[in-house]
Amino acid sequence: MTQLVSIKMITIIALDSLQSRLIADLKSCGIKGYTIAEVEGEGLHAQHFTDWEGRNIRIETLASDEKLSNIMEMLSENYFEKYGVIAFVTTVEVLRKEHFL
Amino acid sequence: MTQLVSIKMITIIALDSLQSRLIADLKSCGIKGYTIAEVEGEGLHAQHFTDWEGRNIRIETLASDEKLSNIMEMLSENYFEKYGVIAFVTTVEVLRKEHFL
Amino acid sequence: MTQLVSIKMITIIALDSLQSRLIADLKSCGIKGYTIAEVEGEGLHAQHFTDWEGRNIRIETLASDEKLSNIMEMLSENYFEKYGVIAFVTTVEVLRKEHFL
Repeated sequence: MTQLVSIKMITIIALDSLQSRLIADLKSCGIKGYTIAEVEGEGLHAQHFTDWEGRNIRIETLASDEKLSNIMEMLSENYFEKYGVIAFVTTVEVLRKEHFL
Repeated sequence: MTQLVSIKMITIIALDSLQSRLIADLKSCGIKGYTIAEVEGEGLHAQHFTDWEGRNIRIETLASDEKLSNIMEMLSENYFEKYGVIAFVTTVEVLRKEHFL
Repeated sequence: MTQLVSIKMITIIALDSLQSRLIADLKSCGIKGYTIAEVEGEGLHAQHFTDWEGRNIRIETLASDEKLSNIMEMLSENYFEKYGVIAFVTTVEVLRKEHFL
């Protein structure tokens, strides 16, 4: 089999009202593709279940380590505190890594 | 960049009819947030594709190692055998781990 | 806790028009179950955002290393170049690994 190589997957959970702004900011960080799924959820603003139960979005995008760093910084500065956005990073493997960088 | 730290993500696939009961049980295990997506699927009750093709749910929640252990035990005792529920654990990385524990 | 063991999760992003063909090909590779979620997305055919923005699907299936190898080969030969399908592999942990192989 062609060799699999590691790359980072970033998953972002946010209120659906943030969708277009988040996508614009992710594109500014250089991402080349993404998927968005509608999800329900209960959140974790601070230490308790909050009342923004309802429509959320779940964005996934693949990124190089450098873009990942820029994206996490962008989210930290503009989204985490203000909007209770959640993001987590998974190491995944792909063929043809160059297509995603 | 602020340091990323490891945490466990638990993904649960189940019949959508189990949703409210599963969420209640997960909250009893101490989770602070989750997302639910509707998915289609074909299952793997035993060794073959089963006839419960149809609406399933896919629940995601982040947890500390201790909560993870409690959740897997709860699922083992009440859901895996009886309902063909599937669960898998992914190690992911987050900023601000304390928000999820 | 019962011991968790590693297994591969394959996630495939594709145009929804490919769904039935992809599922048939995955079954030919021996998978025993899967989930499909509808997602929106923008893609990465080559080096730029493409115009197939719209309905995509996100398929997840668990597989042994051997099946994983067959699936990636099948996708490479029939889907990656022709249809801009994306696939990535995550190492996850499950109880009862034998149920998924």
